[in-house]
Amino acid sequence: MKKYVIGIDFGTLSARAVIADPENGNEVASATYEYPHGVMDEKLPCGKELPKMWALQHPLDYIEALKNTVSQALKNGKIKSEQISGLGVDFTTCTILPILEDGTPLCTLPEFENTPDAYVKLWKHHGAWRETEKINEIFEKLDPERLEVYGGKLSSEWMIPKIAETLNNAPEVYEKADRFIEAGDWISLMLTGKETRAIAFAGFKSCWTAKNGYPKKELYEAVDPRMKDIIGTKIPEKVCGVDEIAGYLGEKGAELTSLPVGIPIAMPMIDAQAALPALGITESGQMMHILGTSACLITNSDEANPVHGVSGYVENGVISGCTTYEAGQACVGDAFDWFVKNYVPEKYIREADEKNISIHELLRRKASKMKPGQSGLVALDWFNGNRSVLDDSSLSGVILGLTVSTRPEEIYRAIIESTAYGARVIIETFESQNIAVNEIFAAGGIAKKDEMMMQIYADVLKKPIKIAATSQAGALGSAINAAVASGFYKNIKEAAAKMSISYIKTYMPKPENVEIYEKLYAEYKLLHDYFGRGGNDVMKRLQNLK
Amino acid sequence: MKKYVIGIDFGTLSARAVIADPENGNEVASATYEYPHGVMDEKLPCGKELPKMWALQHPLDYIEALKNTVSQALKNGKIKSEQISGLGVDFTTCTILPILEDGTPLCTLPEFENTPDAYVKLWKHHGAWRETEKINEIFEKLDPERLEVYGGKLSSEWMIPKIAETLNNAPEVYEKADRFIEAGDWISLMLTGKETRAIAFAGFKSCWTAKNGYPKKELYEAVDPRMKDIIGTKIPEKVCGVDEIAGYLGEKGAELTSLPVGIPIAMPMIDAQAALPALGITESGQMMHILGTSACLITNSDEANPVHGVSGYVENGVISGCTTYEAGQACVGDAFDWFVKNYVPEKYIREADEKNISIHELLRRKASKMKPGQSGLVALDWFNGNRSVLDDSSLSGVILGLTVSTRPEEIYRAIIESTAYGARVIIETFESQNIAVNEIFAAGGIAKKDEMMMQIYADVLKKPIKIAATSQAGALGSAINAAVASGFYKNIKEAAAKMSISYIKTYMPKPENVEIYEKLYAEYKLLHDYFGRGGNDVMKRLQNLK
Repeated sequence: MKKYVIGIDFGTLSARAVIADPENGNEVASATYEYPHGVMDEKLPCGKELPKMWALQHPLDYIEALKNTVSQALKNGKIKSEQISGLGVDFTTCTILPILEDGTPLCTLPEFENTPDAYVKLWKHHGAWRETEKINEIFEKLDPERLEVYGGKLSSEWMIPKIAETLNNAPEVYEKADRFIEAGDWISLMLTGKETRAIAFAGFKSCWTAKNGYPKKELYEAVDPRMKDIIGTKIPEKVCGVDEIAGYLGEKGAELTSLPVGIPIAMPMIDAQAALPALGITESGQMMHILGTSACLITNSDEANPVHGVSGYVENGVISGCTTYEAGQACVGDAFDWFVKNYVPEKYIREADEKNISIHELLRRKASKMKPGQSGLVALDWFNGNRSVLDDSSLSGVILGLTVSTRPEEIYRAIIESTAYGARVIIETFESQNIAVNEIFAAGGIAKKDEMMMQIYADVLKKPIKIAATSQAGALGSAINAAVASGFYKNIKEAAAKMSISYIKTYMPKPENVEIYEKLYAEYKLLHDYFGRGGNDVMKRLQNLK
Repeated sequence: MKKYVIGIDFGTLSARAVIADPENGNEVASATYEYPHGVMDEKLPCGKELPKMWALQHPLDYIEALKNTVSQALKNGKIKSEQISGLGVDFTTCTILPILEDGTPLCTLPEFENTPDAYVKLWKHHGAWRETEKINEIFEKLDPERLEVYGGKLSSEWMIPKIAETLNNAPEVYEKADRFIEAGDWISLMLTGKETRAIAFAGFKSCWTAKNGYPKKELYEAVDPRMKDIIGTKIPEKVCGVDEIAGYLGEKGAELTSLPVGIPIAMPMIDAQAALPALGITESGQMMHILGTSACLITNSDEANPVHGVSGYVENGVISGCTTYEAGQACVGDAFDWFVKNYVPEKYIREADEKNISIHELLRRKASKMKPGQSGLVALDWFNGNRSVLDDSSLSGVILGLTVSTRPEEIYRAIIESTAYGARVIIETFESQNIAVNEIFAAGGIAKKDEMMMQIYADVLKKPIKIAATSQAGALGSAINAAVASGFYKNIKEAAAKMSISYIKTYMPKPENVEIYEKLYAEYKLLHDYFGRGGNDVMKRLQNLK
């Protein structure tokens, strides 16, 4: 009987299961399921309104997704459940929920169905910004060394701020919760009946380090005296490494998935990081650049050095023997969309209509005829603030060099270029800490679609940029993880060597463009440091005036 | 028999005559005539192509305009030519032509009809930029004190560069020309048969000062040895003051205009300055702000001090006993038009259509609902470079504070605000030289139309802004000048007191807005000095890369 593995990628709006052949990684079937409640950012199911900056989810949506995607994928591939020998999942993070010891989400208890803090706080829930300021001050005083691991600052998206917020808003939820758990770990618990905590979640989002474990009691106590004993009670102290498995499919899990009891369940991965093995990125010096509305830059290195402004690094976090670093750009595709929605004249829209192409495509065609530097423009890509390496949400975008002859395609191109410069600052920051970046693997929808942009990136970053054949690598990465858990391979590196996706294209830097982009990047860097590092805090002051 | 005066305003594309009642300034008739050749910026009438940056006119268009507007205005007002007791004209400047001693334009000689340099070089002819660089260097060495009168730099639009260019391009034209003359002075010559040179043209455009006359021989010689003796030959040495008249209508002039031989012809004025008496701006501390595609700021003062970056000042240049200063903003309405043409989304265009208003009006309505500072934006208004006070055409526009929530009306408003900040820098530069600016008289189409903008100007400049009942004051100013020449009044001040236009509205600064604009202006000023005064020459470098 031919054996397969299954991977499930839990994204922000939907989950996607892939059944893959462990011998070669071929995708034999897949299925997608949209969460019925989607992202709750305006109100709860009961109609209760939510404050601004909130983003919740309903945990039962994930259970429905489990049920539906697995059975549908089996059906689509005409595969019997007995043919599945292992399962892996990846999840958005830091996406957390309060539960009872047996895994029951508090929001499913009648007493809490009207309490927002009892629901899943999605990764992009930003309600805890007040708590975050205080927590950062406490870290600076009590544990500055740990703060360096996280680039000098914790994000409001992470575990401690989100829990502190719950304590402030709804102490009864905090009180009642036996655990606060990452949704990825919660899925493991649902499947195996056994609670584990994956190193990637703990390391990247809960301030756990291999060297020092979780922060000390005193730190939690300073955040809130009621949080003093949280580690060891509401958050188990033990963290599981990448070489462990989460467990085996239990009876309840088997009921949910209709898969055989006892098959191995891999340790859950972070969604973006699951793409690493899927794209074959397992060596030091390789960087994955996931280009979407924002961007995520993930790289592996033999070195484990703090990098200021990078979101974090975890030793053995994804691949055994490697340290994985994660950095982010707050605004990439978001900026292009903003421009196209608001700043393109009617005649261009008519032209795109006539040519039957998107406005993005029209602007790309016009912009690709231009030479680097021809527009005289340089932009700062801070239209959503800056994540890495300045980590400052009060920063804002700039377009400089405008004249009454400046055309929309010139600004469009300048915005694209600015995101490339932003990536280069991040890569240079890595390199300054001896973390080499030799080649870049671009992933995400834009990477496949936008040839002009990828050439600009190669020219600005002065590195080859490889494009994979798929833009949805997460589920395959989880399937690769499942193949290791099922014993087909010794480790992720070995599995990735056989199962990863091939590359369809490599963009090489063009020397004539590199020469000009060197000059333009120097201008960007000068403005970056002037506006971003205290030369002129005009952006903060304008933000305050707002 | 009721007596009238007539004023003719020679603009860039047309001339406009106004017949006015000298008792009260009432306009009793008017007529407009468009120049048949318009602005020749692509080719000569014979089809010969012109280089870029050229802008020529045909002098016979002005003669046609004289004939047509005067006779048509008389007809429109049912006024007999004997009722006209005096005539005044105003003209664009520096608009010059080479002529024979009797006034015959060289371009009307068969030998020169294919020679571009033999035609009228319009004020916005920019062919002489190479010569200008050299001439500025020579002035710095040989006559730095005079350079200070012109804000530290001569413009390529002025008399010496334009003549030096002719010498380089077409020495035969230079050789043949008995005179180089401002078109305004040439009209006087055509009317009176007598050559005069008005102080305003000589002072503002030909580097003539009351103290030192024209520059010395050595300076012209350094520009080109063949120019050594130009003063006293091709440019008469004598300059006429504002209290003189140009002469009396001669027989040829009477033929052209069908007006009575012998009526007094006022000294010609600069077109923008003719608006001063028309708007009643004759006192120290009053500033006229002419808002069009670009802007011109003209003020009178008892003081005569050099102001760096201001285009120039002339003692007794317009009003006897006063020094008139002129400064400029290179881009005002041009920037709004550029934005509206290129950066407004389809849905706004539909909305404007539905409401049956212009897109400008739609953006104004949306933007006027916003409070100062609310958008978080600040812009630099250098979309055409900067005229006053930095005098640097390599500077370019900036928009700072952009986020993916920024809406088109917010940028539109930020651009308007930036032009107000630009005006404030100019006014503060005047004030720093003890040239008071107490109230502002806004003129030009925008001033009457755009209430939001005028309120912003009042709030940013912290001064009352008065709006006149007309946006076409030039011809009335010339008529007022004619009334003085005809003896109805002793001088311009007296005449303006009776004949000037009334004001329809005064915008007062609103304290709550002033408070916020103080902060925003401080940010503008910081960026202005950083990018404009050597803190970061990124704009020049980007311009060079282009």
